[in-house]
Amino acid sequence: MPKTKLAASEKESVLVPETMKSAYLQRPLEVSVEEERVPNVTGKEVLVKLMAVGVCGSDIHYFAHGRIGKRYVQYPHVQGHECAGIVVSIGEKVTKFKVGDRVAVEPGVACMNCEWCKEGRYNLCPDVQFLSTPPVKGAFVQYLRHPEDFLFPIPDSLSYEHATLAEPLSVSIHAVKRGGLTPGSTVAITGMGPVGLMTVIAAKAFGAKEIIVSDIEPLRLETARKFGATKIFNAANEDLNAAIEEITSGLGVDMIIETSGNAKVLQSSIESAKRGGSVVVIGFPAIEEVPLNITLMLQKEIDLFSVYRYTNTYPLAISLLDTIGSKIKPIITDKYPLEDIQEAMNQAHTNRSGSLKVMVYPNHLQD
Amino acid sequence: MPKTKLAASEKESVLVPETMKSAYLQRPLEVSVEEERVPNVTGKEVLVKLMAVGVCGSDIHYFAHGRIGKRYVQYPHVQGHECAGIVVSIGEKVTKFKVGDRVAVEPGVACMNCEWCKEGRYNLCPDVQFLSTPPVKGAFVQYLRHPEDFLFPIPDSLSYEHATLAEPLSVSIHAVKRGGLTPGSTVAITGMGPVGLMTVIAAKAFGAKEIIVSDIEPLRLETARKFGATKIFNAANEDLNAAIEEITSGLGVDMIIETSGNAKVLQSSIESAKRGGSVVVIGFPAIEEVPLNITLMLQKEIDLFSVYRYTNTYPLAISLLDTIGSKIKPIITDKYPLEDIQEAMNQAHTNRSGSLKVMVYPNHLQD
Amino acid sequence: MPKTKLAASEKESVLVPETMKSAYLQRPLEVSVEEERVPNVTGKEVLVKLMAVGVCGSDIHYFAHGRIGKRYVQYPHVQGHECAGIVVSIGEKVTKFKVGDRVAVEPGVACMNCEWCKEGRYNLCPDVQFLSTPPVKGAFVQYLRHPEDFLFPIPDSLSYEHATLAEPLSVSIHAVKRGGLTPGSTVAITGMGPVGLMTVIAAKAFGAKEIIVSDIEPLRLETARKFGATKIFNAANEDLNAAIEEITSGLGVDMIIETSGNAKVLQSSIESAKRGGSVVVIGFPAIEEVPLNITLMLQKEIDLFSVYRYTNTYPLAISLLDTIGSKIKPIITDKYPLEDIQEAMNQAHTNRSGSLKVMVYPNHLQD
Amino acid sequence: MPKTKLAASEKESVLVPETMKSAYLQRPLEVSVEEERVPNVTGKEVLVKLMAVGVCGSDIHYFAHGRIGKRYVQYPHVQGHECAGIVVSIGEKVTKFKVGDRVAVEPGVACMNCEWCKEGRYNLCPDVQFLSTPPVKGAFVQYLRHPEDFLFPIPDSLSYEHATLAEPLSVSIHAVKRGGLTPGSTVAITGMGPVGLMTVIAAKAFGAKEIIVSDIEPLRLETARKFGATKIFNAANEDLNAAIEEITSGLGVDMIIETSGNAKVLQSSIESAKRGGSVVVIGFPAIEEVPLNITLMLQKEIDLFSVYRYTNTYPLAISLLDTIGSKIKPIITDKYPLEDIQEAMNQAHTNRSGSLKVMVYPNHLQD
Repeated sequence: MPKTKLAASEKESVLVPETMKSAYLQRPLEVSVEEERVPNVTGKEVLVKLMAVGVCGSDIHYFAHGRIGKRYVQYPHVQGHECAGIVVSIGEKVTKFKVGDRVAVEPGVACMNCEWCKEGRYNLCPDVQFLSTPPVKGAFVQYLRHPEDFLFPIPDSLSYEHATLAEPLSVSIHAVKRGGLTPGSTVAITGMGPVGLMTVIAAKAFGAKEIIVSDIEPLRLETARKFGATKIFNAANEDLNAAIEEITSGLGVDMIIETSGNAKVLQSSIESAKRGGSVVVIGFPAIEEVPLNITLMLQKEIDLFSVYRYTNTYPLAISLLDTIGSKIKPIITDKYPLEDIQEAMNQAHTNRSGSLKVMVYPNHLQD
Repeated sequence: MPKTKLAASEKESVLVPETMKSAYLQRPLEVSVEEERVPNVTGKEVLVKLMAVGVCGSDIHYFAHGRIGKRYVQYPHVQGHECAGIVVSIGEKVTKFKVGDRVAVEPGVACMNCEWCKEGRYNLCPDVQFLSTPPVKGAFVQYLRHPEDFLFPIPDSLSYEHATLAEPLSVSIHAVKRGGLTPGSTVAITGMGPVGLMTVIAAKAFGAKEIIVSDIEPLRLETARKFGATKIFNAANEDLNAAIEEITSGLGVDMIIETSGNAKVLQSSIESAKRGGSVVVIGFPAIEEVPLNITLMLQKEIDLFSVYRYTNTYPLAISLLDTIGSKIKPIITDKYPLEDIQEAMNQAHTNRSGSLKVMVYPNHLQD
Repeated sequence: MPKTKLAASEKESVLVPETMKSAYLQRPLEVSVEEERVPNVTGKEVLVKLMAVGVCGSDIHYFAHGRIGKRYVQYPHVQGHECAGIVVSIGEKVTKFKVGDRVAVEPGVACMNCEWCKEGRYNLCPDVQFLSTPPVKGAFVQYLRHPEDFLFPIPDSLSYEHATLAEPLSVSIHAVKRGGLTPGSTVAITGMGPVGLMTVIAAKAFGAKEIIVSDIEPLRLETARKFGATKIFNAANEDLNAAIEEITSGLGVDMIIETSGNAKVLQSSIESAKRGGSVVVIGFPAIEEVPLNITLMLQKEIDLFSVYRYTNTYPLAISLLDTIGSKIKPIITDKYPLEDIQEAMNQAHTNRSGSLKVMVYPNHLQD
Repeated sequence: MPKTKLAASEKESVLVPETMKSAYLQRPLEVSVEEERVPNVTGKEVLVKLMAVGVCGSDIHYFAHGRIGKRYVQYPHVQGHECAGIVVSIGEKVTKFKVGDRVAVEPGVACMNCEWCKEGRYNLCPDVQFLSTPPVKGAFVQYLRHPEDFLFPIPDSLSYEHATLAEPLSVSIHAVKRGGLTPGSTVAITGMGPVGLMTVIAAKAFGAKEIIVSDIEPLRLETARKFGATKIFNAANEDLNAAIEEITSGLGVDMIIETSGNAKVLQSSIESAKRGGSVVVIGFPAIEEVPLNITLMLQKEIDLFSVYRYTNTYPLAISLLDTIGSKIKPIITDKYPLEDIQEAMNQAHTNRSGSLKVMVYPNHLQD
C-alpha cells in the first residue's frame, strides 16, 4: 500500500515548533487564542499534532454556563476533547506508536488501578483525567500530549475530521451495548443532534431492524435518514408514541435511547417501550429531577440504563467510521481554523437549527 | 422419616366433598364466606386442598381500594394467591403429581406460547392468568383447581404455611437475579414488610456480604436482623444515606432494592448507590410519577431494574425455605381460619405496625 | 405491492384434496412416493400446503446410514424439516393465522412446560417433536399439519424456497448468539456447506468485521465470498492457522465456528483462537471422541460452546433473509419436484462438490 | 478492637534488615536457602515481610520437572506465589498502605493497558508478571517487593496462613463465576486437592444446593465434607457418574468442575452434565490432548469453560476466608520454616495421600 502522503507527513512531523497556539476560555462566552510552549513528552507520552477537533454539546454548555452540574470551569480553561492528529514526537517508553502515525485520541485517561478500571469499567474511574472536563486542559491546541495507551491508530482511508467522530460514536456504541441491543431489535432514538445521529449509526451496526427517530429540526431528521433511520418523526407536529404504537402493532419498541436531554421526552419514552424492553439514557436532562412513571415501568418490567461516556469502544468506532466512509460527511456542517475559535463556538452555541457538528482545525483548514 | 401424618392426609384426601367454602369480596372492605361447588379437574389440571394462604399487600390494596392502577375488581371477587396444599384429585393427563402430594402453587399461569413465554420471561405474558388478579378468581377457597405445570412439590420437612412464602420469596429472588447480585456485594433494602424481609433472605442466599435495611417499625427491623440483615436503621429517626456513606467509606452500596413503595425512599436511593451500581424496584410507588435525579444516575452510571412478579423461581424458593426451617416463623404474626377472613383482612389492613404476614387456613387452623 | 399471485394461491388454497403424495424412506438409500390421506387439523393446528422443502445434511445422513448416533430410523419414514408453504386450513382455536397466509415452519415442537422450555431454552426440551427426527414424521409431503405456535409469517417479498433457509440460518444465528459474537469481532468459520454459508450471513448480521472461511470446494468458497466472507481459504492446499496468524498479527480470532464435522479441523481450531476467545461447535464430528488440546485452551482461557438446533430465532432469520433478497439464490443449486425425491436425495448424497442446497417442491416446481 | 499484637508488629516492622534468606531452586528437586539483599522499594512499590507462603501444585510440578508445558525454569529460580505478610516499607507514591498493614498478595501483576486488561480480563494479559512463573522470581523469600495495586488488606481476624489461601480460592471463585453457578444449582467437583477443596467453598458461597465431590484419598474427601460437600465419593471404588445419575434422578448436574488434571475424569464428566449444563476445567490434564465426546456435548448443548488464574477476586476471597474462620484449618497439614524448604517441597511432592496444603513460614513458624 503506497504511503507517499503519510511519508510527507512523517517528514514534516519531526519539525516540532517551540510554541503553539491554544484557545483559552477566559470567561463565559469569551475565548481567545494564545501562544504557549509546546509540551515535552516523556515516558509513555506521545505528542500529537492535532488536525481536527470537534465541538461537543458539553463544550458549548461549559462555554455558555461555566459549569455542568457541580463541575465548574476554572478560568482560563482550554476546551475540546473530540480530536485526531498525527504523532510528531514520542517518549522514551512508547512502544505502540512512531512519528508519522495517524491517531484518534481517547480523551479520558483512567488510573487503570482502581476497582472500576480493573473490572473493565474505566469510564467510572474516580480519578480519570478527561480532556476539557474541568480542571483538565482540553484539545483546542495545536499540539497535545497524551499517553500512548489512550491513542488509537486510524487507517489512511479515514480522514482526521471523521476520526474525531470516534468520540461521540463511542458514547453511542456504549449505549447500545449497555442496553443490550441485538440484531432484529426495534429501536427508537429521541434527539438527532450529533450524538443522536451517531446512535443511529451504532444501532444499525448492532443490527437494529427498525430505527425510529425524532427531533424538531428537519435537517437533523433528514441526516438521520441518510445514516440509517427507517422512520423519522418531527416531534414539533407529530406524536412519536402514537407512531410507535402503530409501527409496532401496539407492542412498543425493544429499546428507546434518549439523547435530547429533554425531560418530557424521557418521561414519555416509558409509554413506547415494549414489555420487557429498556430505556437507555444518554442525554443529561436540563432539569435535575425527572418525574418517571415507575408504576408503568414495573408493570412492563422496563429497565433504565444510564450511559456515562464509554469504555473499550475506540477500535470498533474507528472501524465503523472507516466502513461508512464519505457518507458521514453531512454531519460536519461548519469548519473553522483554530484562529476563529470564537466564531466557531458562537456558531455552535446559537445556530442549533442549521448546524450539526462544528469542526475546528488547529493546524490548517481541511477542505 | 416418618410419614404417618401424610399417610393420613392421603387417605383423607380422596374424600373430596361436593361443596366448599370460598371467601368473596363483595365490595371494598367487605368479604363474606360462601358455599359453592368444588371444581372438577380434567386434562392436566390438579385439585389442591389448600392448607394455608397468605395475605399479600396487593390483596389488601384491592380489598381497600377496589383497584391497582387501571386494574379494577369486578365484584364479587375471590382474593388470595400465596398458597400451598395437598393434591386430592388429578386430571387424566396429569403426570407429575399423584393424590397425596404436598405442593406449593405458583399463581401465575402463563400461555407458554407468546414471545415472552418462549424467551423464558413468562412473567410478562400478556395472557397470564394470575390467581386473584381481577378478573381471575383467587385462592381464598378450600379447593383450588390449577394446572400441574404451575405446581411444585414441597418436602415433608416444609410446612404448608411456610411453603406459601415461596410466592413473596420468588419476587425477591427475581429481584436479586435481575439486579445481578453477586457474592460479596453490599446491598441496601428499603422497607421491611414481608417482601422486604424475603428480600433479606434472597440477598443472603445470593451471597451479599453486607445487608443494610431500613423501615420505621422496630418489629420489622428486628425480624430483618434475625433473617440476616447486617445493619438495621429506623428511618423514622435515622438517616439511611448518611449511614450507608459511613459503612461503605463513601463509596455507596452495589445495589439498593426498594420494596416500601415510598416514593421519597426511591428518590433518595440514587444517592446511596455506588458508581456503576444499581437500583432495583419492587414496591409500587403510591404516587404515579416519581421524580428521579437522572443527572446523578448518569454521572454514576446507575441502572434501574424493574421487578414484576417472577419467572422460574419456585424450586429455588422452596429449597431456601426448607433450608431456613423454623427460623422463618416470626414472619407469620397472625393466623385465622377461612371463616374469619373478614377479621384477617381487617388485621392486615389496619395493623401494619404489629403485623407482618397474616395467614389464612382454609381447611383447619394449624398450630 | 401487487398480490395477484398470492390471491391466486388463496383461492386455490381452500380446495384441499383428500389425498396427497408423501415420500417414504423404505430402507437405506431407497425412498418412494406414496399416496395417503391429507391430515385433518383441529384445535391450534394449521394445515400448510408445502411449497418448498430443503434437504439437510442430517436428512442425508439418515438416508444413507439409517441413524445418527443412537437415533435409529424406523422404516418406513418421512424425512425433511426445512419447509415453507401456505395455510390452507386451520383448527378451531387458531388465532394467529388464516387461510392464505404464507408461512415458514419451525420444525421442533417443544412441550413448553418442562424446565428448559420455561427458561427459554426449548431446543433442549426432552419431549420435543422435531419433524423428520425419528420417529417423528417429516416434511416431504404435500400437506403438513403443524401447531400455529411454531409457524411464522413470511413477507410477500420472500419466496417459499428462500423461506426454507430460515431453518439452517436459525442454527447459525443460535451459534453466533451462544458464542457472544459482537460487532467488530474477527471470526473464522470452517466448512462452507449450507450451514457454514448461513453462518457467514449470521456473523455478518451480528457485525463481524473480519469473516475468514475455509473449505475444500471452490464453489463453496466463492459462494461464501458472495455472502460476506472477507477472506477465503482452500484447506486442500492452504494452512488456515498460518493465514489467521498473519491476518490477526499473531493474536488469533475472537471466535471460531466449526460447521464441517471434520474432527481434525475442530482440533486445529484451538490454535487459531485468541486469548479469551471462543470455539463454537455446530458440526457433529464424524468420530465420537475428538482429542482436544485442553492445556492450550486453559492457557488462553478459551471456551467451547455447543450448538444444538436453536431457540427463538425464526423472526430474525426471516427478516435477514428478506433483507438479503435474491443475493441468496446461489445457495440453491438443485431443484426437484417431490416425484423425483429419489433423484434429489441421490444428488445431495453423492455430488457434494457441485451441489449446495438441494430443494424439493412438493406441490409444483418453482422457477 | 484491640490491636496490641499488630502494634508490636508495626514497631518491629520498621526494622528492616539489609539482607534476607531466599530459597533458590538449583536444579530439579534441589532447593537451597541463600542470603541476599532485601530489595528497595520506590514509587508505588511496597515491601512486604512475608509471614506465610503456601506450596501450590504448580510449584511442585516445576520443582520436579523443571517446566510446565513450554514454560521452562531458568535456574536458579525462586518459587512460591501464595503469600501474605505485613507491610514494612513503602515507596514514595504509595497511597493505599502504610507500614504495619497486614496484606494478602495477588501474585500476578498485569500491565493494565493492553486490550485484555482494559476489558477487565487482566488474567489474560500477555505481559503479566506472575510471582514464581519463570522467569519471574517468587515468594519463598523473607521480604517481597510488590506494587500496591496488587496487595489487599486483610482483617485482624484472618491469620496470615489462612490469608495465603486467597490465592487458590481465587481460582475457584473465578471458576464458579465463569461457569455461571447460581443459587440452587447442583454441582459436581472432581479432585479434592487444595484447589478442589477451595472450589467446594466457592460453590457453597455461590449458593450451590448440592455439592457432589470425588477423589481417591479419604482424608481429602472428609475435608471436603467439612467444607460443605453434600455427597462424597471415592473414585477408587465408586462410580461417580452412576451416583450422580441417581442423585439427580437421571438429569445430571448443572455444572461439573474438574480440578484433578486426570484426563479420564474430564472425559467422563460430559456424561454427568445436565442438558444445557456446563463443564468447567481448572486442572491442567497430564496429557496434552484429551479425547472428548463432542457429539454428546452437542446433543446436550454442554459448554466447556476454561479457567486460567483469576481476575478481580481477592476482596471476595478474603471476605469468604474471614467468614469461614478456623473451620478452614484442616487444609494446612504441614508446616515448615523457610530454612526447611527442601523438606517442605519433598513432603508436598511425595506424600500426596497424607498432605493437603504445605505451608512455609519465611520469618518464623506460626503455631
